[in-house]
Amino acid sequence: MQQAIGKQSIAFEHPPCILSTASIVGKKEGEGPLKDYFDCIIEDPTLGKDSWEEGESELVRQACQKAIEKSGLKKEEIRYIFAGDLLGQLIASTFGLKDMNIPLFGLYGACSTAGEALSLGAMTVAAGYARQVLAVASSHFGSAEKQFRFPLEYGNQRPLSATWTVTGSGAFVLSQETGDIVISGITTGVITDYGIRDSMNMGAAMAPAAASVIYQNLQDFNIKPDYYDRIITGDLGKVGKGILIKLLNDNGYDILDQHMDCGIEIFDNSEQDTHSGGSGCACSAVTLAGYIMDKLKTREWNRVLFVPTGALLSTVSFNEGQTVPGIAHGVMIENRGC
Amino acid sequence: MQQAIGKQSIAFEHPPCILSTASIVGKKEGEGPLKDYFDCIIEDPTLGKDSWEEGESELVRQACQKAIEKSGLKKEEIRYIFAGDLLGQLIASTFGLKDMNIPLFGLYGACSTAGEALSLGAMTVAAGYARQVLAVASSHFGSAEKQFRFPLEYGNQRPLSATWTVTGSGAFVLSQETGDIVISGITTGVITDYGIRDSMNMGAAMAPAAASVIYQNLQDFNIKPDYYDRIITGDLGKVGKGILIKLLNDNGYDILDQHMDCGIEIFDNSEQDTHSGGSGCACSAVTLAGYIMDKLKTREWNRVLFVPTGALLSTVSFNEGQTVPGIAHGVMIENRGC
Repeated sequence: MQQAIGKQSIAFEHPPCILSTASIVGKKEGEGPLKDYFDCIIEDPTLGKDSWEEGESELVRQACQKAIEKSGLKKEEIRYIFAGDLLGQLIASTFGLKDMNIPLFGLYGACSTAGEALSLGAMTVAAGYARQVLAVASSHFGSAEKQFRFPLEYGNQRPLSATWTVTGSGAFVLSQETGDIVISGITTGVITDYGIRDSMNMGAAMAPAAASVIYQNLQDFNIKPDYYDRIITGDLGKVGKGILIKLLNDNGYDILDQHMDCGIEIFDNSEQDTHSGGSGCACSAVTLAGYIMDKLKTREWNRVLFVPTGALLSTVSFNEGQTVPGIAHGVMIENRGC
Repeated sequence: MQQAIGKQSIAFEHPPCILSTASIVGKKEGEGPLKDYFDCIIEDPTLGKDSWEEGESELVRQACQKAIEKSGLKKEEIRYIFAGDLLGQLIASTFGLKDMNIPLFGLYGACSTAGEALSLGAMTVAAGYARQVLAVASSHFGSAEKQFRFPLEYGNQRPLSATWTVTGSGAFVLSQETGDIVISGITTGVITDYGIRDSMNMGAAMAPAAASVIYQNLQDFNIKPDYYDRIITGDLGKVGKGILIKLLNDNGYDILDQHMDCGIEIFDNSEQDTHSGGSGCACSAVTLAGYIMDKLKTREWNRVLFVPTGALLSTVSFNEGQTVPGIAHGVMIENRGC
């Protein structure tokens, strides 16, 4: 097991590079603080299609197309796609990718899916199974509210702990080529269940999973939080952030100086009324593809730990009284250029 | 790309062995033709739990436990789980695995999930990322009917093309250890869409995906169908089988002598009224874990191509008028013992 490290991690001997990224977002995300970092802002929430679900599929399609275009590769040079979304039976990914004619591994990690896709994609490239792969994740406010919460027409009140699902898709081409920005290692999460039952407080459900993966990453690699310029969770929001910091403090790590949450960054709550922050697979995916990659490219940051977090529930599990367990996937991204 | 072969395949330099398997099934499966091959037949469809979904989770838990027990390993020696099921947001896998404390990759490939899990699991072990991993898939008649079709209480009539979802879970421990039965290669499927819109005729929706993967496997490895003792699809049923044979004939391959479909084998339609056959992730998973492994161990067969097939739809995509695309994942399993 030459590349396996510690309990849950891999350090890649030949770290795959992130050859290109693409971020396509909706109107609200395009009005937020990160608006200048996205490749494309789409005004029409259905992208000219008949439903939110078809609109989300179109986001996936466009993000993949853009990432491939920016990589300078031909579609045929991508050997695998690793993809997932929040909808039951992954219909956003399916209908967005069905005409790609590229071997597909469908993934479900709730809002941690971007981390899961990058992890498996990096493992595949680093092992020599593929020269290039594509990792992609998406979410859509309209399709997610319909799937998990209330019909939009109902106009329900949202508690302050609730998050706002990001409309968008982030796509990444990983390659064996030499490149500055690489995935140097991963730490794969276990399901963590603290018994949270409030589907309007996902941050609290996911924070223990994030804490567990960050703790294990620091342990497995025998490093301190300041090894990283940023430790970046996906969509804990303000409520989840507080829990994460406390849980890690209780276990001997202070990450307050390094921590950033994509859900807190992507919207301006005082202007955009998004309560605890952004959420959804796309929240971390488009923030990584746009904002974080820019900070790494310009060397404002040199090393980050990207830890998107997922809340594992469905309306069926919730209505049957189950808890909301969490999972998170850690991806170590570095600028190794000179 | 030393191990990548042709367009969609991998030939493993160090083929992982299938160290152990476990198959847990429901009452109806335990009355069918394969009853003597399963590890455990459960009479109570909810396994003492409050719902079908919780019952399915219990099937997953028991299958994993049994596979680990049969491998002679400790739980802590399993580095990753690759798991999936048919339910929205993978709740059967989530609640079945949440107390395992093993890093998890959640997968969705509809009824092809067992093939997807074995593929990624084998890639992970063969690359040296893990000494041992667990691959598991499940389905449940009650939870699947509720998810995809009608409430059972409604007692709807089923067309003859409809299949019967298998209640069960199949689990597999893959290992770097030397063993007789190995996964020698894989062929990963692309989404195939022939425009089928009948959710009661999944066989027709999935047959083109199976044909595509089998064709590509034979092409990539430059072999003929008689290289295999059996080419085994997951749950095409009688309707899908006819389409598969014809599609491959049209493309120059006659697989009639080798072809077997788990969905046709697992029930006796004349006695059990299951129409086109069995279906669901568990259909192929438990047939592989029980029946097929037995034939390989006794050397009645030496080489099989295992090709579970998935129909990519949800009630939302179906009700919005989308087609039902298919996907399939090919896994080459051999007895290399002496």
